[in-house]
Amino acid sequence: MLRNINPILSPQLLYVLRAMGHGDEIVISDANFPGEGIGPDCIRADGSTASEVLEAILSVMPLDSFVPDPALTMQVVGDPDAVPEAVADFQRIINETADKPTEIQTLERFAFYERAAGTFAIVQTGERRFYGNIILKKGVIG
Amino acid sequence: MLRNINPILSPQLLYVLRAMGHGDEIVISDANFPGEGIGPDCIRADGSTASEVLEAILSVMPLDSFVPDPALTMQVVGDPDAVPEAVADFQRIINETADKPTEIQTLERFAFYERAAGTFAIVQTGERRFYGNIILKKGVIG
Amino acid sequence: MLRNINPILSPQLLYVLRAMGHGDEIVISDANFPGEGIGPDCIRADGSTASEVLEAILSVMPLDSFVPDPALTMQVVGDPDAVPEAVADFQRIINETADKPTEIQTLERFAFYERAAGTFAIVQTGERRFYGNIILKKGVIG
Amino acid sequence: MLRNINPILSPQLLYVLRAMGHGDEIVISDANFPGEGIGPDCIRADGSTASEVLEAILSVMPLDSFVPDPALTMQVVGDPDAVPEAVADFQRIINETADKPTEIQTLERFAFYERAAGTFAIVQTGERRFYGNIILKKGVIG
Amino acid sequence: MLRNINPILSPQLLYVLRAMGHGDEIVISDANFPGEGIGPDCIRADGSTASEVLEAILSVMPLDSFVPDPALTMQVVGDPDAVPEAVADFQRIINETADKPTEIQTLERFAFYERAAGTFAIVQTGERRFYGNIILKKGVIG
Amino acid sequence: MLRNINPILSPQLLYVLRAMGHGDEIVISDANFPGEGIGPDCIRADGSTASEVLEAILSVMPLDSFVPDPALTMQVVGDPDAVPEAVADFQRIINETADKPTEIQTLERFAFYERAAGTFAIVQTGERRFYGNIILKKGVIG
Amino acid sequence: MLRNINPILSPQLLYVLRAMGHGDEIVISDANFPGEGIGPDCIRADGSTASEVLEAILSVMPLDSFVPDPALTMQVVGDPDAVPEAVADFQRIINETADKPTEIQTLERFAFYERAAGTFAIVQTGERRFYGNIILKKGVIG
Amino acid sequence: MLRNINPILSPQLLYVLRAMGHGDEIVISDANFPGEGIGPDCIRADGSTASEVLEAILSVMPLDSFVPDPALTMQVVGDPDAVPEAVADFQRIINETADKPTEIQTLERFAFYERAAGTFAIVQTGERRFYGNIILKKGVIG
Amino acid sequence: MLRNINPILSPQLLYVLRAMGHGDEIVISDANFPGEGIGPDCIRADGSTASEVLEAILSVMPLDSFVPDPALTMQVVGDPDAVPEAVADFQRIINETADKPTEIQTLERFAFYERAAGTFAIVQTGERRFYGNIILKKGVIG
Amino acid sequence: MLRNINPILSPQLLYVLRAMGHGDEIVISDANFPGEGIGPDCIRADGSTASEVLEAILSVMPLDSFVPDPALTMQVVGDPDAVPEAVADFQRIINETADKPTEIQTLERFAFYERAAGTFAIVQTGERRFYGNIILKKGVIG
Repeated sequence: MLRNINPILSPQLLYVLRAMGHGDEIVISDANFPGEGIGPDCIRADGSTASEVLEAILSVMPLDSFVPDPALTMQVVGDPDAVPEAVADFQRIINETADKPTEIQTLERFAFYERAAGTFAIVQTGERRFYGNIILKKGVIG
Repeated sequence: MLRNINPILSPQLLYVLRAMGHGDEIVISDANFPGEGIGPDCIRADGSTASEVLEAILSVMPLDSFVPDPALTMQVVGDPDAVPEAVADFQRIINETADKPTEIQTLERFAFYERAAGTFAIVQTGERRFYGNIILKKGVIG
Repeated sequence: MLRNINPILSPQLLYVLRAMGHGDEIVISDANFPGEGIGPDCIRADGSTASEVLEAILSVMPLDSFVPDPALTMQVVGDPDAVPEAVADFQRIINETADKPTEIQTLERFAFYERAAGTFAIVQTGERRFYGNIILKKGVIG
Repeated sequence: MLRNINPILSPQLLYVLRAMGHGDEIVISDANFPGEGIGPDCIRADGSTASEVLEAILSVMPLDSFVPDPALTMQVVGDPDAVPEAVADFQRIINETADKPTEIQTLERFAFYERAAGTFAIVQTGERRFYGNIILKKGVIG
Repeated sequence: MLRNINPILSPQLLYVLRAMGHGDEIVISDANFPGEGIGPDCIRADGSTASEVLEAILSVMPLDSFVPDPALTMQVVGDPDAVPEAVADFQRIINETADKPTEIQTLERFAFYERAAGTFAIVQTGERRFYGNIILKKGVIG
Repeated sequence: MLRNINPILSPQLLYVLRAMGHGDEIVISDANFPGEGIGPDCIRADGSTASEVLEAILSVMPLDSFVPDPALTMQVVGDPDAVPEAVADFQRIINETADKPTEIQTLERFAFYERAAGTFAIVQTGERRFYGNIILKKGVIG
Repeated sequence: MLRNINPILSPQLLYVLRAMGHGDEIVISDANFPGEGIGPDCIRADGSTASEVLEAILSVMPLDSFVPDPALTMQVVGDPDAVPEAVADFQRIINETADKPTEIQTLERFAFYERAAGTFAIVQTGERRFYGNIILKKGVIG
Repeated sequence: MLRNINPILSPQLLYVLRAMGHGDEIVISDANFPGEGIGPDCIRADGSTASEVLEAILSVMPLDSFVPDPALTMQVVGDPDAVPEAVADFQRIINETADKPTEIQTLERFAFYERAAGTFAIVQTGERRFYGNIILKKGVIG
Repeated sequence: MLRNINPILSPQLLYVLRAMGHGDEIVISDANFPGEGIGPDCIRADGSTASEVLEAILSVMPLDSFVPDPALTMQVVGDPDAVPEAVADFQRIINETADKPTEIQTLERFAFYERAAGTFAIVQTGERRFYGNIILKKGVIG
Repeated sequence: MLRNINPILSPQLLYVLRAMGHGDEIVISDANFPGEGIGPDCIRADGSTASEVLEAILSVMPLDSFVPDPALTMQVVGDPDAVPEAVADFQRIINETADKPTEIQTLERFAFYERAAGTFAIVQTGERRFYGNIILKKGVIG
């Protein structure tokens, strides 16, 4: 552990967040997400919820203010406008924790998978609630 | 996740527990334990407490009944007979979960480090309570 | 071995099944299948039949209920509607073991090879009966 | 599979048997043996019994005739003269299959572990009978 | 060396032949063939002729009976119908050794190179006769 | 870069500091120190002084309070009681930045090398002042 | 450190500059640049400014005189003709240090990213000024 | 060193020349050539001229007689018919050393780069004369 | 293949012979020798006899003239003065091929194994005659 | 190549010299030295003499002034006081090129080998003169 740094941020996760630059993206996924086989490095966080990881990441990582959609979640299959409980939780955490709060945008399920395949890394959490996945785009630090 | 298997058991941790044989040992460590540099593979479980990991491991791994000390904790420095809260918790979980309950034995701090260096693997948890470390010796399955 | 887990599931196979997510696929192949050179990791299970491995995998892995074809076998060349003995055995095991029984669908031989090339892993068994191959798609755990 | 070669001999196991020379040793272990952490390469054969693997290995590998103890098993703890069922099975297979039948010799449990640590490779079988372990020393081919 | 297995089959070559499945192909090449840079693993057999290696491989590997051309050689440049001495030798060995004798088919030089690039492995022999190259497709074992 | 974390802490250095546990040690070395060949991982920080790195590390890492010498520098050869300018600077930074200020202790030159060889990692800075080396022992976080 | 060579040039950076040939390109990036995930090797120089690294590199590396644009910076988004302070600094250093001074040319932001992805290496500095990125093309030495 | 083999041929270079087959190509490059980043393995020969390496290679490697252009150099930019001193030297060495002397053909600069990218290996010499690059195609040995 | 170099010398073997220096040793072993597990790199030459390999090696490698025993064979167990046929063959080849003929010296079987374990490399041949092993010490080239 | 840096210093050699610290040692060896098997990384410089490499290294690397013997050569066997031509050449180059000229000291042949085994790296040159080996100890830069 380190002073003043959320201990949920493991050595590998801290490395990744520090190495990411402006515009790089990271996925926080739920426990059912197929994160190991998509391509990017997959960091295990089986003992944490997606909400806990989101809060920890936003405590050190800025969101990108150059784009309108620095936070993306997956649309419910067959009900694209629904807001699952996990996503509502994400929006609340962003409002409270992010340096630049933003309204979460959404992607259709397979578009979300494709976007995830091009990110910098995936954090696979133990989140049990469905649709507990979010993609974050890193911003700049002045 | 898998059916009927505690989801705290990550892919790497399941691999290790399944690969271990009779007499092999595993360390469950607290968040301050120097687990990365001791020698054995170190599996991160930053989002779980040592108690949660102990319960999950004992749900699939038998303790060794060939020896009198299949579970070992670290003595409090300067007070070897004290029973820290984390250790009391370990004893309760062993009583409730292990296939063959046993009374936890103890090792002096540096003897514990030396024993840990010769184990099969270390699971580094996010346990914040001091002395939240335990070494388990695997038994046989008939 | 581990308590309550089918010992046919080796360390590497347990790792793969636990790492797979919703929609990831795994091949169980017979002894003549060209599984080593197709692309995915190939896990050897030369001492088991395909039926034994199928039963062991379904004891821990849910089938995908989002698609109509979570279980696929290879059509007999020249007789696409035939049901080889090994496949009949697969259907019986799925009916008895799977969390959500499903009717096996089929693919033409080379379409099966192509599908197999995109899976998460291949388990190469010692199955001697011809057409003893099956692709399974992993479902979610609630 | 190959013509005239026992299909229990997997690619990796065939490689090892062919690479071994005069005097090199191999362990066939039961399912509880701590084979992964001892040192030599550990080849999984979870779907086979130790007897099946012994028969397959002896079909291609000669036993060393330069020493009196080319086949060694582990003594029962506390009863060194006992002949466990698995060992009786081994002796029968050696009598029937080996190029040069020999009487199995025994080692005390920890002496067996130490000897195993210096071998060329370990084949970890799914043998469920206790004491189903044997060390074989390779002979020459004229 | 192993009992009843041609000693020309080295550890690596035995591994490859055992790992190949139905329809996988292997190249036996002469000493001038550009086998190291084409893509597949290249196994050295500098001390053997292509004929010796062919005979050894056919002693354990079945030819594919699902296709009309399980054995392919390279056409003489400028004289596609010629039968070089090495190829005549190959045909004789196939007739005498293969489980299912077949008539060798041919490919134009660069088509042969392209086909070789997609095989499972290449065995580079010390064959000094020109056109001493052959591609074999593995069959099934019942 | 990350919010609220000194940007001198590179991805690799953050990883190491987060992975270290109670009692693990890290070396901050000057530009002439033989840090690459001693054994531990050597992290380059050629563009920073040792003082800058010390301040950055102490902003996140606690010093060990279980020992009397959690901070060690190298004695001037031939004048063991001298306090080089770099070391005076280190003491000032520890006083101002460390969670638990401590008085720096010293080691003879070759004893310092030997101690450095057993640490978790070495940060090789661009410090041009002689004797600009310090070993820090990590403490616990409550 | 070495005699007569700028100590900002770390072992890895010296290696890269020496290995580059005529026409190979290198990126010097600011602290927010997404340099780790683009493709080329990324050399950390968190303790130096982009200007310091540019001066050090030009002290040993010639610029290409075969092309009109051996030095390229990123256009300010929305104001392509602006000259950020960092870029003005780069032009001054090139005028003073390069073997063949040249006028810096510019690329649109995403064209710059694409060009960077095809370079030999990226040096990620700690430069805090925005647009502190430059691509250099190596020339010949007569 | 070896008896009767030019000592300029280093272990790695001898390996490559021996591994190459009929039609494989190798580049001998001058000191400014961008040989490390093009793709093929790059063998350093910084202490030798291109002429010395050419002579050493031709002492053991035959040129291909199946094609009209087994030796290719780079055209002078803007003067494709010029014969640089280094190239004249190459022609002289081929005439004196090659098993089958041939007239060197030429390629435009970027066509030469593209051809080089598909070769077996590149030998990067310390040749200071411009245009001191040549691609050789290996022939057969009867 | 290469001009004027014995084609039995494979790429890897040529590499090793060229890399060896004054006093380095190489083993040529028969087909029963335990060469893969002793320590040094083991180069396969299953298709050649030990005599063929000895002749090929001596055609390029000088024997050490600084010591009285640059060529060592294994004593027949129980008959240390016997000269096996393979060894007689070795002596004849050394007399005819070596740059500096020498009388072969011998080592007891296990002393030979120990000496072999410290050599630069082992060439494992297909030699079927017993005691067909020899250790050679490389000399200097003036 | 780089501006103002001797082009004999290859990328790997520059890396090593820059990475070495105070007291680290490097060997420059002649063509017969057994440099590949001793332990340290061995950098090939087959096209250069030991004298050329010594001059290039001393142009950038200071010699250690803390010890009386920062330059060591090998004593002639049987004539420890002899000064071979190569060594006389080394002394002349040190006098002319080193930052702090020093008188070369000597070691007995096998003591030299042992010392070499503990150095940072070995540069294997093409030096043909016997005893053309030297060990250099790096000094500090103020």
